[in-house]
Amino acid sequence: MLYLNFENLAKIGKTHGITRAEILAQGKLIEKYLREIESKNQGFYTIIDDKSQLQNINKYAKKVEGKYKDIVVLGIGGSALGTLCLKHALRYLPNKSKAPKLHIVTNIDPVKIKKIESDIDFKKTLFIVISKSGSTIETISQYLYFRQKCKDKKLKITDHFVFVTDEKEGILRMIADKEKITSFDVPKNIEGRFSVLTVVGLLPARLIGIKIEELIEGAKRIRDEFLKKNIEENTPFQLAAIQYLLAKKGKNINVLMPYSQELDFLSIWYTQLLAESIGKKGNGITPLRALGVSDQHSQIQLFNDGPNDKLIMFIEVEKLSENLYIPNSHPELKEFELMNKKISFNRLLELEKQGTEMALTHNNRPNITIKIPKVSEENLGELFMLFETSVAFLGEFYKIYAFDQPAVELGKKFTKELLLKEYL
Amino acid sequence: MLYLNFENLAKIGKTHGITRAEILAQGKLIEKYLREIESKNQGFYTIIDDKSQLQNINKYAKKVEGKYKDIVVLGIGGSALGTLCLKHALRYLPNKSKAPKLHIVTNIDPVKIKKIESDIDFKKTLFIVISKSGSTIETISQYLYFRQKCKDKKLKITDHFVFVTDEKEGILRMIADKEKITSFDVPKNIEGRFSVLTVVGLLPARLIGIKIEELIEGAKRIRDEFLKKNIEENTPFQLAAIQYLLAKKGKNINVLMPYSQELDFLSIWYTQLLAESIGKKGNGITPLRALGVSDQHSQIQLFNDGPNDKLIMFIEVEKLSENLYIPNSHPELKEFELMNKKISFNRLLELEKQGTEMALTHNNRPNITIKIPKVSEENLGELFMLFETSVAFLGEFYKIYAFDQPAVELGKKFTKELLLKEYL
Repeated sequence: MLYLNFENLAKIGKTHGITRAEILAQGKLIEKYLREIESKNQGFYTIIDDKSQLQNINKYAKKVEGKYKDIVVLGIGGSALGTLCLKHALRYLPNKSKAPKLHIVTNIDPVKIKKIESDIDFKKTLFIVISKSGSTIETISQYLYFRQKCKDKKLKITDHFVFVTDEKEGILRMIADKEKITSFDVPKNIEGRFSVLTVVGLLPARLIGIKIEELIEGAKRIRDEFLKKNIEENTPFQLAAIQYLLAKKGKNINVLMPYSQELDFLSIWYTQLLAESIGKKGNGITPLRALGVSDQHSQIQLFNDGPNDKLIMFIEVEKLSENLYIPNSHPELKEFELMNKKISFNRLLELEKQGTEMALTHNNRPNITIKIPKVSEENLGELFMLFETSVAFLGEFYKIYAFDQPAVELGKKFTKELLLKEYL
Repeated sequence: MLYLNFENLAKIGKTHGITRAEILAQGKLIEKYLREIESKNQGFYTIIDDKSQLQNINKYAKKVEGKYKDIVVLGIGGSALGTLCLKHALRYLPNKSKAPKLHIVTNIDPVKIKKIESDIDFKKTLFIVISKSGSTIETISQYLYFRQKCKDKKLKITDHFVFVTDEKEGILRMIADKEKITSFDVPKNIEGRFSVLTVVGLLPARLIGIKIEELIEGAKRIRDEFLKKNIEENTPFQLAAIQYLLAKKGKNINVLMPYSQELDFLSIWYTQLLAESIGKKGNGITPLRALGVSDQHSQIQLFNDGPNDKLIMFIEVEKLSENLYIPNSHPELKEFELMNKKISFNRLLELEKQGTEMALTHNNRPNITIKIPKVSEENLGELFMLFETSVAFLGEFYKIYAFDQPAVELGKKFTKELLLKEYL
């Protein structure tokens, strides 16, 4: 199970750090915040109890087993980023070689669309069209494009398309009902960026062989913590309190820095979650992506010696999915003597993380570590739920509604006006 | 040729914007700053005049033509990020299909190393080991690992390895000389993050078929601007002045947001360039990656309505490498009527960028656009040189030395101590 270590915060003094006592003192707010969150009637932490969701996905997956070589997700933002994270985190796990290949069209860039078009075997491809509203212009455009390609190839639409959309409303729902296209419902009370543990993320995951029951198991453990009144037992609240207290001290950039290549895309998913939920009314925390050890040779200079405006959130993996030793292929050179000791890449990576952490702490740069045993379905489920629930608490700390994204609308409105002006 | 459009800055008022006059007033500093930069004796803007560099690379490339199917770059930070950018930006260009495949090991994560190991055909692989000092522990570990693999497979080391390192110093230089391994020199006065237009970036680029002469041509055009005393003719200085003036107004996060999937990795390269060069002594600008249109559905809420602490730097491509239309595959539905107008993904992407820009400007969020005609070698050369020279100017604005990275050392020192404690 994941573990949050924040002891470095107490080592760097009052100005830039926070003591354990300060964090624990926030615990008195948990009950109130939980009541407020509950009153907002969001489904992201209860949907994981819904067994029918898994049953529906499994039933469909069994029905189409062996039928597809390529799965293409058509979506953008919250309809795609969780799946992108799952794909990259779990693609190196064993027994995945026979699974279909997953492609995710997260953009409308014609270069990307053409690339995916040329990579897939249409006759053996399933397109999963994901849009909660059913009207996202980017997703609809992608859908129109690939639907036309299938028609040109005389493929039966119902054999190659599945919709994930609202139960009742929207154009995708209408088409699905009319043409009897298989469809799944996105629950009304779950926003895109909180939907990775719904059919939005679970359906494509299941189709490429990810164990979705274990994702849910992990998520449940953290959800149960999230509901605890005692801060010592509530990791999501601890994390939110740390982020909030440090933002108040001017550290309103949060760097997510996993020391694991497989978790690199977790930061992309987290970016949307934090940015859209909390970035409101002049407030907010800016998420920043980094990757260990690579970014030691890129961003670490700035983190150590630039403006002291960041909280570094490391993710450490106890046991990486591979274990490799650094051989001494130059036994004749005294410069490489140390390499006779059979040091693993894994150990070197751990020690580099420790060295980096020590340097940041020495420079009074706040840093915490989320430790997970390994990169697995269970632990990813935990991480997803940890961040979702801590962001819900952050909304309460900031006294903002975390579950909308009103400032996205203005750009959409301007674009629509430009489109109509040009084409009508 | 690229073009910098900053007219939105004047539209958003004094508090968050800057007028054209304010920017031009900085022009009086150019001569002084150019003298100061010159006194630092950095080679990144003169190396592009060195014809022997291209000759050496071309000579080697012709010699090994057809010999390799896989090229593996072993490096980290500045030894890898420029190449990563080039690979992703130009991989979709025509006539690249027969070129060798380029793999870049930017990390010591065993999962990544194992993945590349299983992807390559060792007998047809060239490893390019890149470390200026010759002692970067991550690169050396990667080298020891793949050298051992080659030895195990009874491959001749000189057939499969090339070193890019210091002319005289370091362990890689010593090994190259002793074993007669082909090697190329990294010029002493060019830092890793400024080295993409030296053999560091050009050698792997040339081997996968990128036209390196054109990269250099583009770079030269901007270098010539960089040396001009008149701010109206000096785009790099304009950019640096804008970044500096806005940072002084509290916008010290710079978002690089290309509206082109192919340029997504330019932001990774730029991150190191800006972070390591300017993030010093409590000063600095934090680079942030974003991608159009994808990030409209992720970070735009924060940019529009979060803290007003960012400058958004769009990159717009006039003519993307593909041109695709959105067909109306539902002619029977009135909801899709607009799609009968033959709108292209390209045009939709442009209009979405315009809408996003208008919304940001409406919300008083400073934004500028760098426009390039297309994603090509020439334009990438321009972009590389634009950012390198503007960062050099930024160093002068901040009165810091932009060409070292002293705060990276402490973490390395702690790691080394941990290693020695554990293994000696």
